[in-house]
Amino acid sequence: MEKLYLEDLRIGQRFASATCVMEESSIKAFAAESDPQPFHLDEAAAKASLFRGLAASGWHTASATMRLLVDGGLPFANGLVGLGGEIAWPKPTRPGDTLRVESEILEIAPSRSKPNQAIVTVKSIALNQNADPVYVFTAKLLVFKRPAPGV
Amino acid sequence: MEKLYLEDLRIGQRFASATCVMEESSIKAFAAESDPQPFHLDEAAAKASLFRGLAASGWHTASATMRLLVDGGLPFANGLVGLGGEIAWPKPTRPGDTLRVESEILEIAPSRSKPNQAIVTVKSIALNQNADPVYVFTAKLLVFKRPAPGV
Repeated sequence: MEKLYLEDLRIGQRFASATCVMEESSIKAFAAESDPQPFHLDEAAAKASLFRGLAASGWHTASATMRLLVDGGLPFANGLVGLGGEIAWPKPTRPGDTLRVESEILEIAPSRSKPNQAIVTVKSIALNQNADPVYVFTAKLLVFKRPAPGV
Repeated sequence: MEKLYLEDLRIGQRFASATCVMEESSIKAFAAESDPQPFHLDEAAAKASLFRGLAASGWHTASATMRLLVDGGLPFANGLVGLGGEIAWPKPTRPGDTLRVESEILEIAPSRSKPNQAIVTVKSIALNQNADPVYVFTAKLLVFKRPAPGV
């Protein structure tokens, strides 16, 4: 896959990731490590909760989305370096869900002090197999120009 | 620890978490699973990158912060259910860093349609051992009132 530098990006440009399956075992393993709340760990407790069934930690969905972006969903030559952004989880991720990520460049703000870099705003939406958005991340990413020849 | 319901919360209320150490092995393990970029996995590559040394994935810092919040850093009786929010990573998390989280309630917005719940805005700042903020999460959390007796 062609890796992109700042010069290759434009507002409105879109990207699509591969897919990944959110296995029940990995949902429980992630939760046990990072978000050990009953509705992420135990079917009966989850059923009685506002989730009405087992749901992945939002941070698991965020991390799985990052993996899809790193694995070609957002092919930036210098990698994906986020300064921050806005996140939302409009729906839970469920065991067995297949996620994919659609991304779009919303803004490109060249640095005033560093002419070889810019802050690029990218909106990434993780969708399940029913095309329901389960996670939206509008990120500010640090993106670099192509290095000069010989550098 | 006393678990808090909506009636127990007020704007300006503050909370402090326990601490956790971000071990190099767990930084690499998290990155291998969720964010396999060279600057999170390999010292030499990290040294040559803009991080100038191994740095944890921002999602690892976010997940470790969540664990500190779940483990008593934000003792809400119905758990921590986030709708979304704003995130920022002002500095990298480094191997061996000890993190703790300070949280403050910024806003309480009662639901119009559901009298027993509100959206509570909580700003959580993860600080390293030098008191440098490494991660800021301003979250919208769903919080519930104490159940009526007998319910």
